[in-house]
Amino acid sequence: MSKGIVYYEVGEHIEQFLLIKNAAKGIASNGKPFLTLIFQDQSGEIEAKLWDVSDGDEKNFIPETIVKVSGDILNYRGRNQLRIRQIRPASSSDSVKLSDFLETAPLSTEEMMSKITQYIFEMKNPNIQRITRHLLKKHQESFIEYPAATKNHHEFVSGLAFHVVSMLDLAKAIAGLYPSLDTDLLYAGVILHDLGKVIELSGPISTTYTVEGNLLGHITIMVNEIGKAAEELSIMGEEVIILEHLVLSHHGKAEWGSPKPPLIKEAEILHYIDNLDAKMNMLDRALERVKPGEFTERVFALENRSFYKPIFHK
Amino acid sequence: MSKGIVYYEVGEHIEQFLLIKNAAKGIASNGKPFLTLIFQDQSGEIEAKLWDVSDGDEKNFIPETIVKVSGDILNYRGRNQLRIRQIRPASSSDSVKLSDFLETAPLSTEEMMSKITQYIFEMKNPNIQRITRHLLKKHQESFIEYPAATKNHHEFVSGLAFHVVSMLDLAKAIAGLYPSLDTDLLYAGVILHDLGKVIELSGPISTTYTVEGNLLGHITIMVNEIGKAAEELSIMGEEVIILEHLVLSHHGKAEWGSPKPPLIKEAEILHYIDNLDAKMNMLDRALERVKPGEFTERVFALENRSFYKPIFHK
Amino acid sequence: MSKGIVYYEVGEHIEQFLLIKNAAKGIASNGKPFLTLIFQDQSGEIEAKLWDVSDGDEKNFIPETIVKVSGDILNYRGRNQLRIRQIRPASSSDSVKLSDFLETAPLSTEEMMSKITQYIFEMKNPNIQRITRHLLKKHQESFIEYPAATKNHHEFVSGLAFHVVSMLDLAKAIAGLYPSLDTDLLYAGVILHDLGKVIELSGPISTTYTVEGNLLGHITIMVNEIGKAAEELSIMGEEVIILEHLVLSHHGKAEWGSPKPPLIKEAEILHYIDNLDAKMNMLDRALERVKPGEFTERVFALENRSFYKPIFHK
Amino acid sequence: MSKGIVYYEVGEHIEQFLLIKNAAKGIASNGKPFLTLIFQDQSGEIEAKLWDVSDGDEKNFIPETIVKVSGDILNYRGRNQLRIRQIRPASSSDSVKLSDFLETAPLSTEEMMSKITQYIFEMKNPNIQRITRHLLKKHQESFIEYPAATKNHHEFVSGLAFHVVSMLDLAKAIAGLYPSLDTDLLYAGVILHDLGKVIELSGPISTTYTVEGNLLGHITIMVNEIGKAAEELSIMGEEVIILEHLVLSHHGKAEWGSPKPPLIKEAEILHYIDNLDAKMNMLDRALERVKPGEFTERVFALENRSFYKPIFHK
Amino acid sequence: MSKGIVYYEVGEHIEQFLLIKNAAKGIASNGKPFLTLIFQDQSGEIEAKLWDVSDGDEKNFIPETIVKVSGDILNYRGRNQLRIRQIRPASSSDSVKLSDFLETAPLSTEEMMSKITQYIFEMKNPNIQRITRHLLKKHQESFIEYPAATKNHHEFVSGLAFHVVSMLDLAKAIAGLYPSLDTDLLYAGVILHDLGKVIELSGPISTTYTVEGNLLGHITIMVNEIGKAAEELSIMGEEVIILEHLVLSHHGKAEWGSPKPPLIKEAEILHYIDNLDAKMNMLDRALERVKPGEFTERVFALENRSFYKPIFHK
Amino acid sequence: MSKGIVYYEVGEHIEQFLLIKNAAKGIASNGKPFLTLIFQDQSGEIEAKLWDVSDGDEKNFIPETIVKVSGDILNYRGRNQLRIRQIRPASSSDSVKLSDFLETAPLSTEEMMSKITQYIFEMKNPNIQRITRHLLKKHQESFIEYPAATKNHHEFVSGLAFHVVSMLDLAKAIAGLYPSLDTDLLYAGVILHDLGKVIELSGPISTTYTVEGNLLGHITIMVNEIGKAAEELSIMGEEVIILEHLVLSHHGKAEWGSPKPPLIKEAEILHYIDNLDAKMNMLDRALERVKPGEFTERVFALENRSFYKPIFHK
Repeated sequence: MSKGIVYYEVGEHIEQFLLIKNAAKGIASNGKPFLTLIFQDQSGEIEAKLWDVSDGDEKNFIPETIVKVSGDILNYRGRNQLRIRQIRPASSSDSVKLSDFLETAPLSTEEMMSKITQYIFEMKNPNIQRITRHLLKKHQESFIEYPAATKNHHEFVSGLAFHVVSMLDLAKAIAGLYPSLDTDLLYAGVILHDLGKVIELSGPISTTYTVEGNLLGHITIMVNEIGKAAEELSIMGEEVIILEHLVLSHHGKAEWGSPKPPLIKEAEILHYIDNLDAKMNMLDRALERVKPGEFTERVFALENRSFYKPIFHK
Repeated sequence: MSKGIVYYEVGEHIEQFLLIKNAAKGIASNGKPFLTLIFQDQSGEIEAKLWDVSDGDEKNFIPETIVKVSGDILNYRGRNQLRIRQIRPASSSDSVKLSDFLETAPLSTEEMMSKITQYIFEMKNPNIQRITRHLLKKHQESFIEYPAATKNHHEFVSGLAFHVVSMLDLAKAIAGLYPSLDTDLLYAGVILHDLGKVIELSGPISTTYTVEGNLLGHITIMVNEIGKAAEELSIMGEEVIILEHLVLSHHGKAEWGSPKPPLIKEAEILHYIDNLDAKMNMLDRALERVKPGEFTERVFALENRSFYKPIFHK
Repeated sequence: MSKGIVYYEVGEHIEQFLLIKNAAKGIASNGKPFLTLIFQDQSGEIEAKLWDVSDGDEKNFIPETIVKVSGDILNYRGRNQLRIRQIRPASSSDSVKLSDFLETAPLSTEEMMSKITQYIFEMKNPNIQRITRHLLKKHQESFIEYPAATKNHHEFVSGLAFHVVSMLDLAKAIAGLYPSLDTDLLYAGVILHDLGKVIELSGPISTTYTVEGNLLGHITIMVNEIGKAAEELSIMGEEVIILEHLVLSHHGKAEWGSPKPPLIKEAEILHYIDNLDAKMNMLDRALERVKPGEFTERVFALENRSFYKPIFHK
Repeated sequence: MSKGIVYYEVGEHIEQFLLIKNAAKGIASNGKPFLTLIFQDQSGEIEAKLWDVSDGDEKNFIPETIVKVSGDILNYRGRNQLRIRQIRPASSSDSVKLSDFLETAPLSTEEMMSKITQYIFEMKNPNIQRITRHLLKKHQESFIEYPAATKNHHEFVSGLAFHVVSMLDLAKAIAGLYPSLDTDLLYAGVILHDLGKVIELSGPISTTYTVEGNLLGHITIMVNEIGKAAEELSIMGEEVIILEHLVLSHHGKAEWGSPKPPLIKEAEILHYIDNLDAKMNMLDRALERVKPGEFTERVFALENRSFYKPIFHK
Repeated sequence: MSKGIVYYEVGEHIEQFLLIKNAAKGIASNGKPFLTLIFQDQSGEIEAKLWDVSDGDEKNFIPETIVKVSGDILNYRGRNQLRIRQIRPASSSDSVKLSDFLETAPLSTEEMMSKITQYIFEMKNPNIQRITRHLLKKHQESFIEYPAATKNHHEFVSGLAFHVVSMLDLAKAIAGLYPSLDTDLLYAGVILHDLGKVIELSGPISTTYTVEGNLLGHITIMVNEIGKAAEELSIMGEEVIILEHLVLSHHGKAEWGSPKPPLIKEAEILHYIDNLDAKMNMLDRALERVKPGEFTERVFALENRSFYKPIFHK
Repeated sequence: MSKGIVYYEVGEHIEQFLLIKNAAKGIASNGKPFLTLIFQDQSGEIEAKLWDVSDGDEKNFIPETIVKVSGDILNYRGRNQLRIRQIRPASSSDSVKLSDFLETAPLSTEEMMSKITQYIFEMKNPNIQRITRHLLKKHQESFIEYPAATKNHHEFVSGLAFHVVSMLDLAKAIAGLYPSLDTDLLYAGVILHDLGKVIELSGPISTTYTVEGNLLGHITIMVNEIGKAAEELSIMGEEVIILEHLVLSHHGKAEWGSPKPPLIKEAEILHYIDNLDAKMNMLDRALERVKPGEFTERVFALENRSFYKPIFHK
């Protein structure tokens, strides 16, 4: 297996299969067209330039195409860039497939569904349990494939489910230390909080926002879904409002998209657990690319901070 | 008919029926209990003190009781206060009734419903028309009685309906000048935008927030209602999302309670019309209590400004 | 008549007269100079590159020159760009003139002046009427030609006058619904509010800020003008201060350039009318360039929002 | 001469003449009226209560009356209060006069005017010199008596002139160290920057805001005055705009009331000098009332900070 | 054992020993002195008024005195207040002691020290371990007694140590789920983060800020202490800077008192753990005083929110 | 002596020695490598492009190399750029040295140290004097060479010392006008306030931040140094805390890096003096590059303002 694309250093030569994530045409100063390509493999992505492209090149090298590339890594404005020497589309005889190039969650979908099912099974309040099970089942197919976001954190295939599983484990550990917490609410809140993303986002690859996503957002979408689920299941207790509130408030503040701040203890903790797992994911991804004694690239979603890996961290 | 309570000046004597809006017990420095009463009539309200109260007084003088009061207006910390000399509960022979003391909209409920019905009738898009008509009918009874808010603007009986009627007229006038506006969306947006208040608030008198109001808010409540109405009426076009967006975004900004800002032209204008009518209501009420050449009391919902009435305004 | 420059799509060929709005020289990576030109017609503008320019080219292709251009539309970083194949300055025999390429108000200057004159005629307070008439007359020549701004809204020839006319009609419609409004103040406020721009800005074409505009701004400039007009006309009533306050406060908040917020009812409404008309102008211009089901480009002056045109809007 | 009112400690007895600054009537819990009086002498002020007042008391003890008071200092909610035992209006035989009780600048008005005149004399640019001299002369009578503000800093008789003199000395000292500064602009800016307060404020005693002050503010008022002065003196150079800009921008930021920030070097420095002198005045006044090792009361205009006087400061 | 003072309802009679936390003298409207007393027991505190006090009363009823009180609970402005009927200082024969009235951590100091010692024992990096052990030992006596704050959270005897123990358990649980975390840094960060409070605050009872606390703050104090400890122990690795950074950044943002934001992964997580434990403490304390279906009092340190206890939470 | 690099105008030819401050490799659209060089001399810097570079070029033209360059000044995106025609490394026979190209303070290091020593000599409080002298001596070697910052103000060799000397003179002048100021504290605060930069920054040339600088910052570093100095000198009075506070608070606000705002009068004034001297330095540098009647480039550290040089300023 070849080395991940983000681990190459300036000056190294590269020759391997890569997936085109993005392609944009430009016109060089000599008047000839060129392509700016973003290549992707499971380790991450790299920008590349293909000069003097023909009309055929433009048609061949489009997003979601796998190509065989050879070239050199150089530094452009402080970031690595790939200078392409040779490039050709992969053929069927190359026996490479899309999923080889997509980052995916470190757990299998079966493991993740099994863990989540177990958490739902542990719920004691039947209203909460039934609504959660109903909605998960309704959207399960997308849920298990979607990323948790288009960028920033868990932006990979099955990222949403993996984020939920990590949060459930975290919820269990914290509730073990603070027994006043209602685990039914916490688990249901974790499972439902981002489920609206299966309607807000377009799908697991080349993810964009749908019109409904843009105009309503995943929070409002999911609050509506809970309301309809309760009606369909003829559930009418205060649990319905509380579950809606947990989803509604999980971004924590109006400026961050929650029209009501958390007003239930478990809503406040849900917001925390969500944040903590997202931050750990972002920190680990940023830090694994630098060596001890170095600072990471700036991480936009962490207030643009650049983090330091201590020398004594091997 | 006696003079409105807010129009008395310091030093004047008063003797008339008033409604108790609020009553709170305190202990004076001589160790004896007293009551702080808020009296109300259609012109507004005034604070009063009743000293050395008996147990009977405490039971008699409770909110929503009509009383006959005599006393004097004095100034306490820059605001008028009523010093009670005599007070007794109204009896049936006094032939006074609750509605005599409640401020109410200047149009009759029939006139208002007739105007709104006409606006719905003018809608050309059947999906928008059917959803609007369905929801108005479902909540009509409360809609026609509720205030538009617990304070700040249109905080009187039928204030919500009156606010809607004023906004509809404004929408029509503006759309007459900017013909690119879709009046179906504008009218529907105006009628539905605050309709969730009939669930958020407790009722037309002594209005407070319900639990659902506190945890979800009228915006989320109404967006849910639109979703359920569409399901019930089997309507599935983009109109549903657009109507939900109009309600969702009508506060204009995340900090003001709209998780999505207006992203449709008519949503932006709806936000404007709402604001303009609310401001006119607040300005008129503040200015009608001062004379030319004076400044009003500070108006909290208008950034705490104190407005000036020019000398040449009679 | 040829198609407006902003309506071409990528891949289309173009051959027509255009006005050079802006020209900047650069050095290409082969060491040869090139020009980045901004072309303009009444529909809007487009960027273009002219490679390998001679000294003569540099001298010929300067701002406010009309040229005959042929070339192709391509996409560069998500925006249309024109790749020039041939370009030559227009000659007198081409019978094209500057005003063919400048966007201008949809009403003639005569119509606009006639409407404004009528509004002044309707004023009842002689002090307000005389000051307004005096200042309009003093600056009429520039007023009727200037844009309302260098960008964002009404940034076209006679944009200022057109903005004023629209606002006057809006003021009249609103005052019809809220009869407590003083139309003398509203009309005078509308006419004077941005009149200082005739001193703040350099002129109707290639508009920039003057030194006085940079150091004082159109609000302060106009407040001074009102003061001097009153002195010249020997007017001394409170109307002078009120008119100065209307202009001073019309941006609504200190952060937006008004050292005093509106403290008169009509000042608050003036701020609203100004905003509403500017927003309608920006929204219409952004939306007329997209098809139903699409989002507009981000509009900077509307908090960088991207607006959606519903599918059911033809 | 008796001890200043602010230097008494809890438990001390007091018997001396004081000036009534403010009087407000209240009703005690026994139903009897009382007066809350603010007494003032040159050292500062103290609150006092007069219980069981007669109608005569109410008429005698009004603002700007001198009274002979005896009573005791007690502590009420952490602040000193005077409990009145005896009080009577001063008679002509008491030979006390208003100015004995008003705090005033530490320099005589003659000294101050002489210093300012000298600074104007030193100006080299005739346009700047003439405008400054003209405006100072026009408003000299008020200028020499007014406070610099109604509260916060230099809020005493002739406080405005004293603030200007201190700032002129500071300007001279700073310009001595940074010779690139234009002292003409600095001196003129210092003299004119707050001169509009003679129109914004009501007068030297019991100072309030005028209508013009409320609606326009001293900055706009003075910019207008400069414009009119230039017209009257037929001065037309860029100096006029620059002087207007100095006054316009001297609050430093839009949020602080300057629609344009300083865009001239001397405008930036003027803002600094103004701030520095105001802060020194507030700090000295707050610190002279505490002993080494103590914190001052919170100073509102210094971000509500409480300052510490080090133990080694005697 | 008598019922906790915060659990009494309006109208109930009370007769028990209480600790005076605060006493302030006032003058009633009849001219007689009274005392406002704050009583405290382990459940919380209540305000009380003692009317017509003698000089002896003033001397007897001072802070940190235990008294026997009888009286009635009444409601004053929405909060409970105690109306004292009888009050006397406790005598030695009453066999009550100070610690009976002070809220204290739910774990014994021995248990807490033993847990913390165990965590230090588990550290693997000797530099981190030695500095942590040295500083804990140096300040152990105060550390084990101090509250974690003067108000908001863990504001009880040994609150600081209890907060640290809870955070250590939380750190361990989280590190169990995210194995990339360096537990040495997390544990050391937890133990040291607020240790500077033993210098910032005056002591375990009637806690106030010291001069050093006011001028430097516990963060700066502790960073200095780490620097000195390293010098004393002749430790020079990067661990010293990293430990200083953990303490320096643990408030998360400049506005919250950390001049540097967390730039080490463990620093970011430390900030989270600190927040989470503080919030759980505040939420539990607020919610245990209300019944299901009620909202709590507003919690200032939680953005002034009022939290809801669901009906289905017994 | 040749003309400073920043004073050339577009179109001029240049031929002189320059220092390479920065070099970055890029790949041109023809596939050939090029270098973007930043050249520097005492007047400032300019960007240049070297096309078609060989491997030898890459090795020769690296930062801190002196080169002989000939070429032409052109305009690229509104800024001057140098188009290189010929370039060669300087040889020993060229008799040019590094310091010829570095901007440096206008006073010699001897003069500056002598002035600072004199100010320390004038201190009367022995504790303050001994700590100041001790720390200056400890870091003197770096202090006298370091810039005051990496950009914005006094970013030249010995900039830190020059900034300190200017501030000392300013402190003396201001204290002369406000005699209540403690000059010992002011002088010590000035000398120590930025001394931590000798640890925060890497050195006088090509200055970057050290790890300690990034994680702690110069304020925290210096507060620690004062604490250690006091311990070493066995000084224990309140002066230590006060000096630490002066350094800690000199950025004025939490958002600007001071965890405590100034709470001592001299701390507030120190913050002012620091700001004033930095601003004068930035203003003078920006204004000396434009002619009367022009605006400067935007100055980032002065809220991105562009300053005007009046026409009557020669």
